[in-house]
Amino acid sequence: MDEIRIIEVKQSVFEDNDKDAEMLRAELKEKKTVLINLMSSPGSGKTTLLLGLARRFKERLRLGVMEVDIDSAVDAKTMLSAGVDTIQIHTGGMCHLDADMTRQGLLELGFEGYDLVVLENVGNLVCPAEFDTGAHFNMTVLSVPEGDDKPLKYPLMYETCSVLVINKVDVLPYFDFDTERVVANARMRNPEIKVFFVSAKTGQGLDELAEHLLERVNAHLTE
Amino acid sequence: MDEIRIIEVKQSVFEDNDKDAEMLRAELKEKKTVLINLMSSPGSGKTTLLLGLARRFKERLRLGVMEVDIDSAVDAKTMLSAGVDTIQIHTGGMCHLDADMTRQGLLELGFEGYDLVVLENVGNLVCPAEFDTGAHFNMTVLSVPEGDDKPLKYPLMYETCSVLVINKVDVLPYFDFDTERVVANARMRNPEIKVFFVSAKTGQGLDELAEHLLERVNAHLTE
Repeated sequence: MDEIRIIEVKQSVFEDNDKDAEMLRAELKEKKTVLINLMSSPGSGKTTLLLGLARRFKERLRLGVMEVDIDSAVDAKTMLSAGVDTIQIHTGGMCHLDADMTRQGLLELGFEGYDLVVLENVGNLVCPAEFDTGAHFNMTVLSVPEGDDKPLKYPLMYETCSVLVINKVDVLPYFDFDTERVVANARMRNPEIKVFFVSAKTGQGLDELAEHLLERVNAHLTE
Repeated sequence: MDEIRIIEVKQSVFEDNDKDAEMLRAELKEKKTVLINLMSSPGSGKTTLLLGLARRFKERLRLGVMEVDIDSAVDAKTMLSAGVDTIQIHTGGMCHLDADMTRQGLLELGFEGYDLVVLENVGNLVCPAEFDTGAHFNMTVLSVPEGDDKPLKYPLMYETCSVLVINKVDVLPYFDFDTERVVANARMRNPEIKVFFVSAKTGQGLDELAEHLLERVNAHLTE
C-alpha cells in the first residue's frame, strides 16, 4: 500500500537528517551562533513577530534571519527593509526544511557573524515539526483567529517546541478563543512548554518574550 | 543529497496516486456521488463553513462528510452533533490524504447513499495540494486573518482549486487585508478561480456559495 511505502522512505530520511542536525548543532556551537527554528500555520504572524523582536534585540545581539517559503520573497523584503540581515530560501515545492538545507542557508547568510539566527520555516503545522533543522530550540506561533484547538489536531508541533507564542491577542474580543483552554491543550502535548501571549501588531507582550529569548540565547552562548 | 532523493520517491508515489484517483472518480461516477476536496490552513474555518453549507443543502441533496486530521475528533463531533453524517479519518501523522486513503474513507462512510461527499482535508497549504484525492473538484478556504499574500507563497494550492472561499469577512475591519489584492494574487495562480467572500460565522455570502456548489454537483450528477 502506498502510505506504508512513504512512511518507510521517510524513516530513513529522518535518520539521515538527525545525524545532519547533530553535526550542524556542533558547528554552530563552535562558531558561537544560536539557531532558533520558528514555525506556525500560514498567516500566524511570524514575520511581524520577528520584526518586533529584531527591534528589541538591537544593540543586544547580532541577528540574522532566514526566510523559508515555497515561492515569493515578500517576507525577506519586509525584514530587509526594516534593516535586518535576511536571506530568502525557496524549498522547491517542499513543505519543510531539513538540516542540510538549513546548513546551505546558513553558509549563504554567512552565519559566523551572528549571535542568533532565526529560521522562519514554511507555514505548516505538520511537516516542519517532523524534521530537526539543527536548531537549538523550536518556537511555534498560534494566532487567536486559528482557534484554541490546534494542539489537539497537530500534536507533534507542540511536542517539539519549547516556546509557544499566542499571537494577535488584540483581536481576542472578536473570536471564540479560550486562553486557559489553549494553554491546557498545549500542556497536554508538552507539559514544559513556555507560553507567551502577545500582539506582534501592537507590541503587547513582546518585551517579556524578547527577554526570555535573550536569556536562552545567552545560556547557549556561554555553554 | 537528501532532498533530491525525496523528490524522486515522491514522483513515483504521485504517478501511482494519479492512477488511483482516476479509478476512484470512475467509481464515484458509477455510484452517482460527487466528491469535493476542501483544503485550507489550520483554523481557516472549514468546519464552520461546512456546517453552514450543510444547513443550506438540507432537503436538496444527501450529504456525507469525511473529516481528516492527524489526531483528535473535534471536527467530526461538531458535524455529527449538527446532524450531518460524518466519519473521522486519522492520517497516522501524514500531512495529506491520497486517493487510496480517500477510497478507504468512502467505503467506511458507505458513499453509495450520498449525492455529495465533502472531504475536509488536513489543515495545510502544501502537501494536500500535491495529491489528487479523486475528487471532482477542489475548494480552498483563506481566512482574512491569514493575509492576502497566501497565493504568492503557496502557488500549487491555488492552481489546483477551482473555488476560493475568503472566510471571516466579518473581521475585515480589524485586519490589513485587501480584498482586491487577494483576488489578483489568486488569479495570478489560476485565472479561472471562482472567488466567494463569506463569513461562516454570520452566514454572510453562504447562500451564493451554496447555490454555486449545488449547480456544480448537479452538473456532475447529470453528466
